[in-house]
Formats: sequence, structure tokens, C-alpha cells
Amino acid sequence: MSALDNPFYSHEFHGDYELISIGRLELEEGGSIPDCQLAVATFGRLSEAKDNAIFVSTWYSGTHQIWRDAYIGPGHALDPEKYFIVVVDQIGSGLSTSPHNASGPNADIAMSKFPHVRIGDDVVAQERLLREHFGITSLELVVGGSMGAQQTYEWMVRFPEKVKRAAPIAGTARNTPHDFLFTKSLIEAITSDPGWSGGEYTSNADVVEGLKRHAGIWAVMGFSTEFWKQEVWRALEFDSKEAFMAGFLEPYFTAMDPNDLLCMAWKWQRGDVSRHTGGDLAAALGRVTAKTFVMPINEDMFFPVRDCRLEQELIAGSELRVIDDVLGHLGLFSVNPEYMPQVDRHLRELLGTKV
Amino acid sequence: MSALDNPFYSHEFHGDYELISIGRLELEEGGSIPDCQLAVATFGRLSEAKDNAIFVSTWYSGTHQIWRDAYIGPGHALDPEKYFIVVVDQIGSGLSTSPHNASGPNADIAMSKFPHVRIGDDVVAQERLLREHFGITSLELVVGGSMGAQQTYEWMVRFPEKVKRAAPIAGTARNTPHDFLFTKSLIEAITSDPGWSGGEYTSNADVVEGLKRHAGIWAVMGFSTEFWKQEVWRALEFDSKEAFMAGFLEPYFTAMDPNDLLCMAWKWQRGDVSRHTGGDLAAALGRVTAKTFVMPINEDMFFPVRDCRLEQELIAGSELRVIDDVLGHLGLFSVNPEYMPQVDRHLRELLGTKV
Repeated sequence: MSALDNPFYSHEFHGDYELISIGRLELEEGGSIPDCQLAVATFGRLSEAKDNAIFVSTWYSGTHQIWRDAYIGPGHALDPEKYFIVVVDQIGSGLSTSPHNASGPNADIAMSKFPHVRIGDDVVAQERLLREHFGITSLELVVGGSMGAQQTYEWMVRFPEKVKRAAPIAGTARNTPHDFLFTKSLIEAITSDPGWSGGEYTSNADVVEGLKRHAGIWAVMGFSTEFWKQEVWRALEFDSKEAFMAGFLEPYFTAMDPNDLLCMAWKWQRGDVSRHTGGDLAAALGRVTAKTFVMPINEDMFFPVRDCRLEQELIAGSELRVIDDVLGHLGLFSVNPEYMPQVDRHLRELLGTKV
Repeated sequence: MSALDNPFYSHEFHGDYELISIGRLELEEGGSIPDCQLAVATFGRLSEAKDNAIFVSTWYSGTHQIWRDAYIGPGHALDPEKYFIVVVDQIGSGLSTSPHNASGPNADIAMSKFPHVRIGDDVVAQERLLREHFGITSLELVVGGSMGAQQTYEWMVRFPEKVKRAAPIAGTARNTPHDFLFTKSLIEAITSDPGWSGGEYTSNADVVEGLKRHAGIWAVMGFSTEFWKQEVWRALEFDSKEAFMAGFLEPYFTAMDPNDLLCMAWKWQRGDVSRHTGGDLAAALGRVTAKTFVMPINEDMFFPVRDCRLEQELIAGSELRVIDDVLGHLGLFSVNPEYMPQVDRHLRELLGTKV
């Protein structure tokens, strides 16, 4: 049983996944998660040589669900008939150990007592899981979008010998100051709600106004100006932007747990592989040995192409593959039918590259 | 005396201006302002033929002050030695009739009782002021930035025969849906503060937390991603982005009146010259006879060049003059030394055009 009951974080809404404990996880910022449970969804079969594994990490508010529904399957580059694909929901996702579900051995870190977690903590936990639980020590590909791209970069720099190929989509190796401020505005939309009560609310419904404002800021930054101008939401069968907000973006976020979102937001703000090299980003990305495709989305308002290009240029042998999507950052949802064919084409080419 | 005392809205902070009543102003949304007072600052001398007048309108949170300090003066295109320049602070600016200062004959519309005002109401008031008070019926140039651009477009469409030349800077003729949502997030940052009390606070200090969050969202959208990445704020002698926020953007907004900002925000959301032509923007802009330079800022996050270009292309004989400024929208503050020379060059050329 969880610290707080929230039916959204369940098999009913997220399908099959397994909770796997990796034991105690010591955290970079101090403190620990006594019993770190990771929600894991796998697709395909691990070869006997254990040489066909792909690792996928998740983004802010997202889980394995969107990867399963949009990115993984026969006909996609992430083909379970060929690869063993492991998707791990990040700490704070609401499915893996998170503020709202901390209980049992984790009871002392429930809700407002949850410690700060960093991208590096996630990747350490993921590597341990893959090694100890699956015996996987080499990955054909690491891929993720947004915060998943942050984790991908962390894998590339922290465990270069384990990552053959990498595809950070719509995210950066070192979070930008603008991104920090954007995330700060998301955090404040939630924490300014009196119902949040310093993180000790009794239901996410107590924070519904803050979560709606949080959705409202996502509307401004998550989609592009052209998304709104061209009324792309009509393709989702809404008849006004207000109906789209009330029927899509607001319910998407109000179902979620405020503290879980805050846990992820804090982590997102501080993603930075140059922590490994005393702040020297070029030195950190100089460690990368994976064949890398850096894949920004052309209309992204907060991970703009130019920021991603600067990092890509620091990675030997890497290529910039820009995805064209008027949705902007939330193109990651794969709503645009022209999005996945681009992602698949790039990932297929990357997977076909000898390394 | 005002409904609420706020020392920011005074000669001490805004220098010379005159309060001129234009009498009762009936409003497009219904209701009226019984005694509409406009804060007016003039520069230079009106010729006997009254053929050297330039009209300037103000942006959200801005007043004549920034125009006086940055845009107007000898050496600038807006040269008081040659032109009679009239700057009118918009309704809700805090200097002209506004929620916080409504008193005397306006006592019934103070604070939360202030009626909705539209861009068209401002322009009707401004035209009446120029005609009745100064005897001006023809303008050499109408110019304004952001909401001032909205007013400029309204002048161009509503009074085409009075506007010889026009320069809308960093703004649109019809507000975009993305802009509406951005402004909505600004509004909600303020109204979500319990201290706002439905608009019946007793001091703007009651709403300081909401005003700070409002400043935080401006930080994300008002400047460009590159402004933050390049740490352009160092030129203003701050040593961290946090110090810049605490020392510049937060005090800028926390000094202001929440209801006044909300009055302007509501107006901004609904700026639309196509109200004159049943929603047909091409027909509305087809009425324009002014020689027009449309002047977006290349790094503007919410009045992007492409939105401005689409409108420019609907105006006969107009030209697109893009201003290059890494600050983005708030380049309007003229912090970048390379900003004003561009504005001056375009305005000088425009003023030199025979019409």
C-alpha cells in the first residue's frame, strides 16, 4: 500500500510492468532510498549471448506506456522480434519508487520527506538493474526523450563502455538556464496552491488548481506557437483550444501526483553530465564512445535545435538528426502521423550502423 | 486620491506627464469610464499647421517613461526638435485611469469593479484626446511596441485617413492563440495568490508572491533562450540569474498594481483588428493606407517573426523590418546597445518616405 492512494499509477492505466527492487540506493545529494523499486516493462526476448538489449528511459510525466503504445512494436525500429527492449520508469514517475507511493521500508521518505534525486541516481539504479537482474552489460542502443534524453546522455558519459549507440531525443546533456526557469515556473504553479500544504496534501485532488495552472504553462511551452495557430488540436477531435485544454492537457496532469511531478522537476532542472568532469561539458561529452544521433525537434520551445547542436558537436562521430514536427516538444507524444516515421528512420539507420 | 495608494504611479517614478480628461468613455464591452483620464507626455512643439505630430502608445507594464528615456530625443528618429511627439499611457497602465486609481467620479469602477477595456477603447480615447485637446487630425507616424503595436494596428485600421505612417514593433494585429494562453498563465499567476482576494486586496504587497510568479513566467517567455544561455544579464552587472531576477525582473513587477496588470492582460489577450470586418483579417488590414514597417524582433518567443510576416503581407506597400536582438521580446527595454540604432534606422527611413 502507498503513502497515498492514486489509482492512476496502476496496471489499469499503465498495462503490464514489473516492480523490481534493486535494494538500497544511496543518492548523490545525500540520503538514500531504502528499497528502490523500479517499474520495468520489457518487450521481446533477450538472446542467449545477451547482445540484443535496448534500454529506454522515460520523460517527465511519461512512463513506459507511451513507449509501448507509440514507439515499440513490429514495424518500428524498436522491434521486439529482433531486440530485447527494457523500459524503466524513472524514480518519481509514480510507478517506480516515488514520494506518493513510498511505504513499507520506504515509509520514512514518503511525501514531503522524499529526498532529492538526480539523473545520475536513476542511471546508477538502471545499470544495477540491468546487470543484476538481467545480466545485461552491453546495450545495442540507449534512447529516451526529454528527461529520457538527459538519462541517455548520463548513460553515455557514465558508462561509455556499455553503450554502443545512443539517441537522445528532444533533450540536453546539460540543462540550460532557460530550461531551469521554465521548470521553476512549473514547480511554482504546484507549490503555490494552498492545497499542496508543503507536500502533505491528502489527495492529488487537493492540488487540482495548481495542477491545472501547471498544465496551462505546459500549453505555452510544450507546444509550438504554430501548433496553436494552425489549430492542430482539431486532429484530436476537439472543437476549441479550451476544450482541448479541459479534455486533454488538464486531465493528463490532474490525474498525477504533485510531489511525484516535483521530484521529477527538481531532477530535470539539474541534469548535467559535466558533473563528472568538474563542469567541463566538452570533457564529459569527450568520454562518449557510442555512435550517437542527437535528435531535437525543430519546433521545440525549450530544447531548441541550436542548444542540442552545440552538444552534438562535442561528441565524436555523432550526427544531428532534426525531427520536423509542428507540435514542438510534445511531438514526443507521437500525435502527428509524420513523427514516428522520422524517429523510426533515424533509429533504424543508427541500429544498422556497425560499431 | 486613489482607490489604493501606490507610490510607483507618480511623478517621482515617471517624471513629467499631464492628466487630461476626455470625459465619459463608453466601452466596447459595455459600461463606461465616467471620467476617463489619460496620462500624456509630450515632446517637442506642435507646428502651426499641426502637421508634425507623432503618436506613441505604450505596452503592458510600460509607460511613456521608457519611450522618453530610450526612444525619444535629439539624435533619435523620434526627434523633438522636428516632431511633436505625444505618448499616451494606456488605460489600466496605472497612470491613466486604472482599477487601482479609480476614484471621485470613477469611484464606482474601482478595483474589482473596473470594466473590461479593449484596445479599440484606448484608440478611440486617444483619437478624441488628440483631436479635442491638441487639434491634431493627422499623424506623421503612429508607433508602439507589443501592446503598443496592437494599438498601432488599431489606429491603422480604425482611422486609416489619419495615419500617414505606422510602425508596429514586436506585436500583432490579431492576437494569436498561443499569446492568449501565455497571457492566461500570467493572469493566473496573479489571481491564484490568495492575497489577491478577488481583486479587493488592500495593497499590492498583499499579492507579492503572485507578482513574483508572474515575473518568473516573464523570465521564460519575455527573454530568449539565448539571453539566458549567454548570460546577457551580466551586462546589467548582476552576477547570477537569481540575482538578476531578484534585483531586476521581480522588483519591476512587484512595484505594480495587480488589478492594473490584469486589466491590461485581458485587453492584450483580445487585440484583434478583424473585429471591424467580421473576423476577416485580410479585409481589415486591406483598409490600411499608412506606409507601414512591420518590425518584429528575431528572438521574440511569443510574437515570432513568422506571425508578424503573415500580417505584413496583408498590408499594401508595407515592409518587414526584422530587428536583431538576442534579448527577445524584452529587447523593447533597449538594454542592448545594438537595439536602438536599428529602430532608429528603420523609423528614420519610414519618416523620410513621402506619402
